[in-house]
Amino acid sequence: MTYSMISHLSCPKCNETYLSNTIQQLCKCGSPLLVDYKLDEVKKRVTKEELKSRPYSLWRYHELLPVEHEEHVISFEEGMTPLSKLPFLGKQMGISNLYIKDEGLVPTGSFKARGASVGISKAKELGVKHLAMPTNGNAGAAWSLYAAKAQIEAYIVMPEDAPEITRKEVSISGAQLFLVNGLISDAGKIVADLVKERCFYDASTLKEPYRIEGKKTMGYEIAEQMNWELPDVILYPTGGGVGLIGIYKALLELQQLGWISGKLPRLVAVQSEGCAPIVRAYQEGETESEFWENSETHAFGINVPKAIGDFLVLDAIYQTEGCAVAVSEDEIREAQRDVAKEEGQFICPEGAATFAAAKHLRESNWIHDSDRVVCLNTGLGIKYPDAFEVEAPLLEPYERVSFSQEN
Amino acid sequence: MTYSMISHLSCPKCNETYLSNTIQQLCKCGSPLLVDYKLDEVKKRVTKEELKSRPYSLWRYHELLPVEHEEHVISFEEGMTPLSKLPFLGKQMGISNLYIKDEGLVPTGSFKARGASVGISKAKELGVKHLAMPTNGNAGAAWSLYAAKAQIEAYIVMPEDAPEITRKEVSISGAQLFLVNGLISDAGKIVADLVKERCFYDASTLKEPYRIEGKKTMGYEIAEQMNWELPDVILYPTGGGVGLIGIYKALLELQQLGWISGKLPRLVAVQSEGCAPIVRAYQEGETESEFWENSETHAFGINVPKAIGDFLVLDAIYQTEGCAVAVSEDEIREAQRDVAKEEGQFICPEGAATFAAAKHLRESNWIHDSDRVVCLNTGLGIKYPDAFEVEAPLLEPYERVSFSQEN
Repeated sequence: MTYSMISHLSCPKCNETYLSNTIQQLCKCGSPLLVDYKLDEVKKRVTKEELKSRPYSLWRYHELLPVEHEEHVISFEEGMTPLSKLPFLGKQMGISNLYIKDEGLVPTGSFKARGASVGISKAKELGVKHLAMPTNGNAGAAWSLYAAKAQIEAYIVMPEDAPEITRKEVSISGAQLFLVNGLISDAGKIVADLVKERCFYDASTLKEPYRIEGKKTMGYEIAEQMNWELPDVILYPTGGGVGLIGIYKALLELQQLGWISGKLPRLVAVQSEGCAPIVRAYQEGETESEFWENSETHAFGINVPKAIGDFLVLDAIYQTEGCAVAVSEDEIREAQRDVAKEEGQFICPEGAATFAAAKHLRESNWIHDSDRVVCLNTGLGIKYPDAFEVEAPLLEPYERVSFSQEN
Repeated sequence: MTYSMISHLSCPKCNETYLSNTIQQLCKCGSPLLVDYKLDEVKKRVTKEELKSRPYSLWRYHELLPVEHEEHVISFEEGMTPLSKLPFLGKQMGISNLYIKDEGLVPTGSFKARGASVGISKAKELGVKHLAMPTNGNAGAAWSLYAAKAQIEAYIVMPEDAPEITRKEVSISGAQLFLVNGLISDAGKIVADLVKERCFYDASTLKEPYRIEGKKTMGYEIAEQMNWELPDVILYPTGGGVGLIGIYKALLELQQLGWISGKLPRLVAVQSEGCAPIVRAYQEGETESEFWENSETHAFGINVPKAIGDFLVLDAIYQTEGCAVAVSEDEIREAQRDVAKEEGQFICPEGAATFAAAKHLRESNWIHDSDRVVCLNTGLGIKYPDAFEVEAPLLEPYERVSFSQEN
């Protein structure tokens, strides 16, 4: 049996094709490359029914992933994260069928583990020994740890003000860590030089074609977990946008396989008002975004002033009749609190942004009460300890709790 | 069909029995109570084979859990955490079959979620509206979030120097949080008064009988994941010791069900040299421990100077021909780094302590090369950002990486 049904790589801009059994980065034309599969073969060999008995991780979809030999798979059982209904918050928001897809429950505590598992596994298969990448924190953490397991040396460059915990993750993995007094775009330039000088594998967002293959599995899982009846709306916090591009790619593949039918979910790119290049482009009907000057948001993962895959994000939005929404920092904080208090889940600010956006879209009636709505939480709240302050009474051992001390 | 096959509660010290459909705390004699099930009925109704098709969480074992009506279950899909072989570290340590059971991959990032899910579900079933508990951090975090979902008000008292991130988890859930300038034993006294004065449910370790039922599922899972062939040794970081007591209880239940046979794994209680009451008692052949004065360890979850269930921990060790081992703070740090560098997993200090202990026991030949050894990691490394410092070069945007800056 063939573990992967990968066919080749192709360019979504100029349609050039490339082999997948040697190292590829961007297309000659500068565009990211996407992976094509022999979907007709997959259709003959795999059934939806068969999936049920497969391992409970994203590798259950191995025919639709790029790794050709199972022994190259580096996995900590990432994927198959909970998709749960939020009845209390749904009622509050007037969305009867509100769901969370919770990517906090993966190794390294963020959805970046999906891209790292598939990206590192394929890098190992291709014989990569050194890689470099810029990161806003979580991707660097995930890639460093998976690289350690794969015995690949990782060079990670991150902004100095990226979440501090992600530095610890990179450092303890044994990776080479560098901080930059700037943005992820500055880190990107440093990585570009490192890659050029030393011929390292460039693991920057969309500069290697396989990270997106890991992330697309969120789309497969939403479909499978909803018993192949797709939701009406999926909201996604959008920085580099790979998750959203991946989910759209997954849905198109499922359509071709005949595993889903009917209208695709409307995909919503959610950004912060402090960094909203995709939202601005969407509002102006553009197919590409422009660099967002002086970007700032405490939802650090979506602080990406110009994404290399912006045109793919915008295409996914337009094709599915979705939209792009920006929310304020305060709305993000409020949504984070609401999800915790009402539903007992401590999600990250990026994830919280999707709930704030859903609230807006419900109020404007873009989302209807009858819509089935999935908000994607991309990671654990605990990775962002500085998102809010805690005040609590401090007692001496001999003191006791008094009513006046309570909230 | 009956969701739970619970029979009643019984006291392991004086054998008194209690009903399980009303609120119970400690036995009249002061001992914790344990839950008994109608194991003969379970045996007739459930097979190991049937489990395979059940939901991928600890609730797959619902007949062996205390919640009688499924609608009371509060779950975020906790349980069925990865049990993985660590080939690189195993080779380094001379243990060919070294495994990690990784409890980082649960909601709230620590094994405490198991106890919280079962404990809170049963509290909800019993009509509890308010609970109070002392905590070293992680248990309070888990119970607060599950309580929020169950609409139970939680009062949490934790030492001021407990991991700061756990304060955030408690606070965002809407629970009432109090800090104490002291140890968990001081927090316990404050909770005891609160319980007495206001008739709150006492959710302190082992003062309610159901937390242990959640934690015992680690034992079921190890057995099921190893295809019902038990390992030779299980090492467990021991603070309150509920996990170890629970695993032992689970193994006895599985024996009675006839689902496992042969010798039980030798259970090893691992503590820090800075707080090792169980180790001291074990070395002196005692059946109870004594309060450990001036306890201190950065593995905060095992900073418990005197555990209420100490006699149950020691009994489990003696009955299985296990042992108790203390490791140093430096050994804990080193093991944490080793697991990350060799195997790509960022575990917590408490979990790291079990690897340090396994190294000792291998060196003294208490563990043999042929033994199948399971180390239990109780939570995510990222919950302890202060466990080690990171030094990394800081670049200006115009600067580039030079060879001299690398580790």
